[in-house]
Amino acid sequence: MQEQTVRIGLAGLGTVGGGLAEILRENREWIQKRLGREIRITKVLVKDMNKERDVPPPPDAKLTGSMDELVGDPDIDIVVELIGGEEAAYNLITRALEEGKSVVTANKALLAEHGSELFRLAADYGAGLAFEASVAGGIPIVKTLKESLAGNRIKSLTGILNGTDNYILSEMTDRGISFQDALGQAQDLGYAEADPTLDVDGYDAAHKLAVLIRLASGCDYSYSDLPVHGIRGVEAYDINRARAFGYRIKLIAQLKDRSGSLQAGVFPALIPEGDILAKVDGPFNAVHIEGDAVGPVMLYGQGAGDLPTGSAVLSDIMDLARGNCHSNTGFVNDALDKADPLPSELTVSRHYFRFTVQDRPGVLSILSGIMGEHNISIAQVVQKQEPSDEAVPVVFLTHSAQLKDVNNALAEIEKLSFIKAPTRHYRIL
Amino acid sequence: MQEQTVRIGLAGLGTVGGGLAEILRENREWIQKRLGREIRITKVLVKDMNKERDVPPPPDAKLTGSMDELVGDPDIDIVVELIGGEEAAYNLITRALEEGKSVVTANKALLAEHGSELFRLAADYGAGLAFEASVAGGIPIVKTLKESLAGNRIKSLTGILNGTDNYILSEMTDRGISFQDALGQAQDLGYAEADPTLDVDGYDAAHKLAVLIRLASGCDYSYSDLPVHGIRGVEAYDINRARAFGYRIKLIAQLKDRSGSLQAGVFPALIPEGDILAKVDGPFNAVHIEGDAVGPVMLYGQGAGDLPTGSAVLSDIMDLARGNCHSNTGFVNDALDKADPLPSELTVSRHYFRFTVQDRPGVLSILSGIMGEHNISIAQVVQKQEPSDEAVPVVFLTHSAQLKDVNNALAEIEKLSFIKAPTRHYRIL
Repeated sequence: MQEQTVRIGLAGLGTVGGGLAEILRENREWIQKRLGREIRITKVLVKDMNKERDVPPPPDAKLTGSMDELVGDPDIDIVVELIGGEEAAYNLITRALEEGKSVVTANKALLAEHGSELFRLAADYGAGLAFEASVAGGIPIVKTLKESLAGNRIKSLTGILNGTDNYILSEMTDRGISFQDALGQAQDLGYAEADPTLDVDGYDAAHKLAVLIRLASGCDYSYSDLPVHGIRGVEAYDINRARAFGYRIKLIAQLKDRSGSLQAGVFPALIPEGDILAKVDGPFNAVHIEGDAVGPVMLYGQGAGDLPTGSAVLSDIMDLARGNCHSNTGFVNDALDKADPLPSELTVSRHYFRFTVQDRPGVLSILSGIMGEHNISIAQVVQKQEPSDEAVPVVFLTHSAQLKDVNNALAEIEKLSFIKAPTRHYRIL
Repeated sequence: MQEQTVRIGLAGLGTVGGGLAEILRENREWIQKRLGREIRITKVLVKDMNKERDVPPPPDAKLTGSMDELVGDPDIDIVVELIGGEEAAYNLITRALEEGKSVVTANKALLAEHGSELFRLAADYGAGLAFEASVAGGIPIVKTLKESLAGNRIKSLTGILNGTDNYILSEMTDRGISFQDALGQAQDLGYAEADPTLDVDGYDAAHKLAVLIRLASGCDYSYSDLPVHGIRGVEAYDINRARAFGYRIKLIAQLKDRSGSLQAGVFPALIPEGDILAKVDGPFNAVHIEGDAVGPVMLYGQGAGDLPTGSAVLSDIMDLARGNCHSNTGFVNDALDKADPLPSELTVSRHYFRFTVQDRPGVLSILSGIMGEHNISIAQVVQKQEPSDEAVPVVFLTHSAQLKDVNNALAEIEKLSFIKAPTRHYRIL
């Protein structure tokens, strides 16, 4: 068996499936030099057998429209699930695992929402369930957490996990354009979908974070418990103001281990420009990890695309073919414990506020008074110089304060008569 | 056997050995949760049994002064070589492999100079030879090249592989101090040895590069064939001048695959400040890889230190304990082919020159004339404004030119009577 061809049943011949097929074709000899075996896509499951395809199927692969024909084929060693979505992918993966077939998937949404069940099923049937491609495209973050940093307790993980959002924020930063214009541009370039909800509202990053939390902490953190804020409300004004203070605004997916309790969430935040994460621009992804032994480590690369994601799928296939499949989750017991989530209200960090106020005497004193009553101490304030009849922005940077205090202070401030627009509020990393 | 304790024979109880022992002690339960087995250091080989130790030996480990007692102990599963140096380490590793014991080592010099022999020996005895800790400390670059990017042809690899040099250059850049002052500071902080040759002359980075070339290309590139230039000649003047042009000077270890021929070397170079590698400051390391499928990927972290390097040693131990040891080199045939090195003279890049000239009319025209005759086209020139009786610097940035042409032009220019000091020359990445 070790010397034989590795036979792949590929479900879905879209961008990533096409990328995988291309790498297998272009680097056939190289892969054999690495693995000692050939990898061949022998069967491809497609939705519509008669559709004109952008991606040509591998020449010696049989096309099928039937899931049963793919997962039930005794001549297939590994099933690669690249159809995306939830229901069909769920059915395909569970059926394949029940047949004892190992599965490679890039499906972050499915793993975030049904991961614990799927990992238990894979363990029951002694099958591999590999998912390097589900987070951050070609960046080897899954293997790094599962294997390379296996001896470390992960103290924190800070990721830029959505390339579309990072592209939009980078364009707003570099070219001073509005969110809508940057989004339109991302759509024109194919970075963003026609319905950008999953990206710009932070859900895609949250799916990926849920997958990483499991790998880093060994606990199941329920996806629905993750606090998620996207980038829809970010305005060019705040990006420029943050820049002037020496920060970049990025959409961050973060996990912090607070003595065993997990604090996690997705939110836009200000990152100091000297921080290497602040240099992650355009459609790139990065994950910054703080391990108790290794200290800070960062991995950077392309978070999407046919060939980068195909490269990650291929590394999983090669691992499974080598029998490197000691555990799917990175823990001996694939049935993980439930996480103990710490409410994000208890997060302590510095904060950025932009108030839009009617320009009259005493405003600053009232605002800072309310903050003081809520234990929020102010580090910097910028107010428009000239008196004006219109509403003007006042920007505060605070020292460390608890999110609960911040929310209480903001609720009180929102009620003041001189506040003329909703306050913008971001955490500072 | 799988359920039993993994018994480690540790050779060398210095910085990294102490780090490994500390992680095993602090994260004992965590490691068992990951691996399902306990890892215990059962025997430690030390040079002098009676020496007062900075690092306390693990409490239940037996100390020995005899190599035979370590490698010959049937109760030891894995030998960890952390004594460094060449001869004793060579003897220890070959003896352990001949006993069929797997070996984990952090010894880059040994792998660079005797790697091909050691990998062949390990293959002959069916033993593992793992070396994640030999390059870039805790950064998982070995596993990434061997496994995560296994389906990629590596088109180029650009590393900042020596933390001492990077610290020195960062201090010179940020604080405008001289090489000597920055070196002294690095020595005071324990980053640099009393004899800094291995670091500042580039040999340490070259050892690491030789290890990475094998992993990336599947070829043995003879260490003695690597062109190596260190940072001893780098002056604060050039660092400042480079900064003014928008560059940082870093010590670079580079591999480029030119249609199967390998171009490799260690040299100080100017990196555009917008490049993420330019943000790798202080004692940090990073490796930037360009794979044909994955595109650009960068890994960043601490390149040295007890716990980061101990973390890498531990990941190798865990891999070996899991039986993830399909091949030591990352290729089925551990006896690699010889590399086909491309002479560095054929490298094409942009260049930085600083000439020190007597300030008289016609100098610029003569210099640019000679460059033109050697196919070197000039992109930018900066000359001191005011006439002066003293020798003055003239800085040129060129367009792409072949190193051979550059060397010929510089040889001709050196002979001119108005050249008053040796010319400084760096490549621009």
